[in-house]
Amino acid sequence: MPQKNSQKPAVSRRGHSLQLTALRGLPGIRRGGNLARLIVAAARGERVAFEDGDVLVVAQKIVSKAEGRVARLSRIRPSAEARGLSTELHQDARFLEAVLRETRRIVRKGPQALIVETHHGFVCANAGVDRSNVPGKGGVTLLPRKPDESARRLAAGLRSRTGKRIAVIISDTFGRAWRLGQVNVAIGAAGLPVLVDLRGSCDLFGKRLHATILALADELAAAAGLLMGKADGLPVVVIRGLRYRAPNKSKAADIIRPASEDLFR
Amino acid sequence: MPQKNSQKPAVSRRGHSLQLTALRGLPGIRRGGNLARLIVAAARGERVAFEDGDVLVVAQKIVSKAEGRVARLSRIRPSAEARGLSTELHQDARFLEAVLRETRRIVRKGPQALIVETHHGFVCANAGVDRSNVPGKGGVTLLPRKPDESARRLAAGLRSRTGKRIAVIISDTFGRAWRLGQVNVAIGAAGLPVLVDLRGSCDLFGKRLHATILALADELAAAAGLLMGKADGLPVVVIRGLRYRAPNKSKAADIIRPASEDLFR
Repeated sequence: MPQKNSQKPAVSRRGHSLQLTALRGLPGIRRGGNLARLIVAAARGERVAFEDGDVLVVAQKIVSKAEGRVARLSRIRPSAEARGLSTELHQDARFLEAVLRETRRIVRKGPQALIVETHHGFVCANAGVDRSNVPGKGGVTLLPRKPDESARRLAAGLRSRTGKRIAVIISDTFGRAWRLGQVNVAIGAAGLPVLVDLRGSCDLFGKRLHATILALADELAAAAGLLMGKADGLPVVVIRGLRYRAPNKSKAADIIRPASEDLFR
Repeated sequence: MPQKNSQKPAVSRRGHSLQLTALRGLPGIRRGGNLARLIVAAARGERVAFEDGDVLVVAQKIVSKAEGRVARLSRIRPSAEARGLSTELHQDARFLEAVLRETRRIVRKGPQALIVETHHGFVCANAGVDRSNVPGKGGVTLLPRKPDESARRLAAGLRSRTGKRIAVIISDTFGRAWRLGQVNVAIGAAGLPVLVDLRGSCDLFGKRLHATILALADELAAAAGLLMGKADGLPVVVIRGLRYRAPNKSKAADIIRPASEDLFR
């Protein structure tokens, strides 16, 4: 994908190598910003010519900003529940109110964050409400309301501008139950299978594989996270070389473990 | 890293792009196999010349095979506990016995797998005991006994053969609490920081970031997982272009969430 010398990448056979490129030169994103247009322009600056099958991973933050999913704490009036939690957890009641508004169910009250189930069904810290990388004082971003639709819209916008079928993943950094640190996961997806069922396939020795379903969209988000950083402001990564079949339908919501299979309720 | 035409990769500036290459041509690994030697030979076949800072992600399976961590179910005599579980879960008592031997604590009994804490402290299905990709009937692989040491040994072996500082991650596919599908995570690591603490850094707008610790080794494992597949037999992936500082000490065991911070006990 990087074609600085208009040379083909040394290895291009799909399935055997991958290239990841973070797009620099993306401007600060404001409400109403046309992400497809800005990303295509940034890619041009990077001399990245999109190809069919490329996967674009986009950090939630810029999608939220473009969609106006930003709140000012100064304009939030905390509810009684938020005030109670504020006393209990020693956190800003207005911030907690912003979290509660995005919350379907509190899973655990951690020492540094509320672990909640969002209205989408994602289990994450603070419902994805985030203070970082928002200009001005007391600004927070909220997760996109319908991240799968955001991804579909962006994929359609890229298709109409480039003529290429580009899969889109919207990523955010989530913590995990038993492992420290955060990893980037997919909260929205379009144009690629989010889960790849390997159960029908055979292993090297001809045995049927069971119970192997790869969370493809999450692995793509994690890979992109290696280049995004948090402070660097590189919220868009192009992944080239992935072998996949475009699905009829596939959305990140499918990754959510159904309540009936949740071992921790 | 792929240098088929002895051309430099089009983009090589660290921190902005990554290249992942799966090594083909690795032979089946047997007990006592010298992984460093076999990997260097496979890399040569692929015309990959290792560079300082490359990260090698190696699937647990071949490490276990090289270390003789393979069991034959026919030689396992199930304990009373395994026989009880076998009745309850409708699974092979000998397989369950193999799992129990690797287990410190049963976390949950799922419909398709036991979720356990291994002696290492990892929480995963069936203690990582795996039937796939083992030649012959009734063979299973067990996780390496000390995967961080396995990683260190392999890194040292690669260093002595190539003269390059190559970080090593040993990966396995784990399920997650609230998300479907499996992702590759690091169970062993050497030569790179497994967790990167971004809390001291500032975001784009100069605000201090809090509570952002990136699970770098897990994101690297997940990225490599995109090329490994399960049935394809591509257990070694070279990642080039990552910007990181080699730590004095760092091991995948550091990723395990301490019991005191486990919200689900």
